Amino acid sequence: MNISKFVAPEIIWGLGSLNQVGESAVRLGVTKIFVVTDEGVLNSGWVEKALSFLKMAKIEYRVWNSLTTNPKCMEVARAATEYMASGCDGLLAVGGGSPIDVAKAIAILATNGGEIADYEGINKVTKPLPPMVIVPTTAGSGSEVSQFTIIVNKKRKAKMVIVSKSLVPDIAIVDPTVLQTKNPRLTAGTGIDALSHAIESYVSLAATELTDVQALNAIRIIANNLRESVACSTNLDAKAAMSMASLQAGLAFSNAILGVTHAMTHQIDALLDLFHGETNGILLPHVMEYNSIACADKYARVAEAFGVNVTGLSKWEAADRAIAEVRRLVKDIGLPESLSAVGLSDDIIPRLSENALMDTCLITNPRDCGQEDIAGIYRRAL
Amino acid sequence: MNISKFVAPEIIWGLGSLNQVGESAVRLGVTKIFVVTDEGVLNSGWVEKALSFLKMAKIEYRVWNSLTTNPKCMEVARAATEYMASGCDGLLAVGGGSPIDVAKAIAILATNGGEIADYEGINKVTKPLPPMVIVPTTAGSGSEVSQFTIIVNKKRKAKMVIVSKSLVPDIAIVDPTVLQTKNPRLTAGTGIDALSHAIESYVSLAATELTDVQALNAIRIIANNLRESVACSTNLDAKAAMSMASLQAGLAFSNAILGVTHAMTHQIDALLDLFHGETNGILLPHVMEYNSIACADKYARVAEAFGVNVTGLSKWEAADRAIAEVRRLVKDIGLPESLSAVGLSDDIIPRLSENALMDTCLITNPRDCGQEDIAGIYRRAL
Ligand SMILES: [Fe+2]
Ligand SMILES: [Fe+2]
Repeated sequence: MNISKFVAPEIIWGLGSLNQVGESAVRLGVTKIFVVTDEGVLNSGWVEKALSFLKMAKIEYRVWNSLTTNPKCMEVARAATEYMASGCDGLLAVGGGSPIDVAKAIAILATNGGEIADYEGINKVTKPLPPMVIVPTTAGSGSEVSQFTIIVNKKRKAKMVIVSKSLVPDIAIVDPTVLQTKNPRLTAGTGIDALSHAIESYVSLAATELTDVQALNAIRIIANNLRESVACSTNLDAKAAMSMASLQAGLAFSNAILGVTHAMTHQIDALLDLFHGETNGILLPHVMEYNSIACADKYARVAEAFGVNVTGLSKWEAADRAIAEVRRLVKDIGLPESLSAVGLSDDIIPRLSENALMDTCLITNPRDCGQEDIAGIYRRAL
Repeated sequence: MNISKFVAPEIIWGLGSLNQVGESAVRLGVTKIFVVTDEGVLNSGWVEKALSFLKMAKIEYRVWNSLTTNPKCMEVARAATEYMASGCDGLLAVGGGSPIDVAKAIAILATNGGEIADYEGINKVTKPLPPMVIVPTTAGSGSEVSQFTIIVNKKRKAKMVIVSKSLVPDIAIVDPTVLQTKNPRLTAGTGIDALSHAIESYVSLAATELTDVQALNAIRIIANNLRESVACSTNLDAKAAMSMASLQAGLAFSNAILGVTHAMTHQIDALLDLFHGETNGILLPHVMEYNSIACADKYARVAEAFGVNVTGLSKWEAADRAIAEVRRLVKDIGLPESLSAVGLSDDIIPRLSENALMDTCLITNPRDCGQEDIAGIYRRAL
C-alpha cells in the first residue's frame, strides 16, 4: 500500500491580481492583518500598493520588516511577540521566501506556542493557524503554495525544515507584475531555485503523477523563459511565465519533497548565509551526476523539457544532456559555477556534510546518500 | 487584466486509501457523519468497508441511499431534511457522480437554506458548508475534486449547474481498488466522461497553465489505459491509472469549466435520463469537429497525447487525427456511436438546443455557438 497526499492553497494568478488582497482578507474573516515584508520590498513600492487595497477593504494593518535573508529563530520569536501584542487576526506576507517563511513561523507560534525549534520535522504543528494570504515578489521560493517553512537555528547553525499541511497558506496571490523590480542577479538566483525545486521533486521518491506534471511543466517553462526574464526586467511575458513556473515547482515540491541538493544548500545557507539560489545553481548539476544512475529515465524527460531531441540516445546519454543543459543555463544567466567562487573552502566540508545528513530533504532523494557521498559532491563542486 | 483562480481539495490517493476515511472525519471535527450512497455501491460492499473504518475512529453515522441517476431536486430536498433531523455534523459520499453531487447539494441546503434551485449558476452559495469527505467509486465524474454540483430541475426538465468554491470537498479519498466492482459499460461510459472533461477543459476559454497540464496528462492516461480498464475488471494498474486521470480531469474542469459537449449532454440527461458518459462519447467527436477552427493547435496536442506522430502534419490535419482517435476509442470500448442508437429522434432536437443555450458550460466553449449551431451538432450525431 502506497498512499500519497496532495494539498494546495487557493491560487489567484494574473497581472494585476495584487488588487485581490483586500477582498481575500475579508473573505477569510480578517479584520486587522500583520504584514510581513522586508526592506527591499518596501522600497519597491509593492507593500504600499497592497496597503491601499487593504484600506479600500477596510482592513486594519500593522507592517513588520525586521528580518534578514535566511531568517533566524530569534527574529521569528520577536515577530511572534509583536504579532500577539498587535491585535491582528491574520497574516499577509509580501516578499520572497524569507518574509513568507517568517509569516508561516509567526502563525505557528501564535496558536501553538513554544519556540519554533519545537516544530522542526514533519507534522509537529497540531493546532489550526490564523488565516494567511501570501503575495510572492520573487519567482523562486514556491513558499506561497508549500507546506514548508525553513528557519535558521542559530545555536545549531542549521536550517530547520518544518513541514505541515497547516502551513499551506489559505490564499496565494501571484501577480507577475511585481517581479519587474528585481535585479538580474536576484531573478537568476530565484529562478534557478525554482528549477532545483522542479528537478528535485520530479525525481523524488515521493513523486506522484499529480506532482510530476507540475514539475515537468515548470522545468519546460524555466528552460524557455529564465534567460529572457534575467535579460529584461520589463519583459512581462517572461515574468508571467516564471511566476507560473515557480508556482508549479512549489506545488510539486510541497507534495513530493526535495532531495540532496537542498539538503546540502540548507547547510551552506545556515552556516555562511549565502544566496540560496546561487548555491543551488552550483550544486544541482553535481547532484544530478550523482543521482543519474538512480533516475536516468526521468532525467531523459528533463532533457526533452529543455528542448533536447533524445531520439536515438540511451537514457544515460539523454541524462547527460539534461545535466549539460542545466550547466549551460546557470552559466548563461551569469550565476557562479563553483563553491569556491562564492567563498567556500575545503575545511568546512566535513561540518557541512555532517549537518546535511540530518536534513529532512535527504529522505526522498532517489539515490542513497551517506556522509562521504555528500562530502564528495561538495568537493567536486568546489 | 486576466485573473484566474485555482482551487483543489486535499487529495488522498492510493490502493487501500479507503482506510483513511475515519481519520479524515476525525481531522475535520465530525462526530456523526451522513453517508450518501446508492443501491449499487451498497451491494458492492464498499460502504460496509467504509463504515468499519468510521467505527474504528468512533464516528457515528447514518446511511442514506434514496437517489436515482441524474439526481432530482426533490430527492435533494428530502435528503437535506433527513440530514438536518439526523444530528449529523458532516457528510461522506461513497459513490459515483450522483451520490457525490447529492452530498454537495445537501451541504448547501443544510447551512444556506431554501431550495437547491436558488443556487443555480456561479457563486450563489454564501455560507460555509459542513465538512465533506468524498470517496469516488467510478473513474469519471471528477466531482470528488470539483466546485460543481449538477442537479436535475424536474419542473424545467433541465440540469442545473451549481458552481461555487465552497463545493470543493474538504478531503477526496481516491482508492483505485473500489473501481474493480464496476461492469464494462459503466467503466467505459465514466471513462469517456473523464475524457470529455479533459478535452473540454483543455480547450476552454478559461484554461490556464495549471489546468492545461492536468487536462493533457489526463488525456494521455485515458488514451493508454481506458481500453485495458474496460477489458479486465481486475487490472489494477489500469484502474489506478484511470482513477488518476479522472482526478486530474476533475481538477482541470473544476477550474477551467467545460464546453458545448456538456452543455448538450446535460439537456439529454435531464429530459431523457440517459447515461451521461454514453451521450458524451457520442457528442464529443462532433463537437470537436465544430470547435476545430477555434483550437486546432490544442487538438494537435491532443493527437500527440493519443500517441499520434504529428510531424509534418498541419495543425488542421493533426486536429482531424485527434478526432479520429476519440472516435476509435469510443468504438473500441463498445459505446454507442449515435444518438439514434440511444433512442433519440429528430423531433426533440429543437427543445434540447433551446435548453442547451442556457447552460453555464457554453460560456467557456472556444467557438461561439448559437442555437442553430447546437441543433446542427445534435443532428449530425443522430
Ligand atoms: Fe529552494
Ligand atoms: Fe461529465
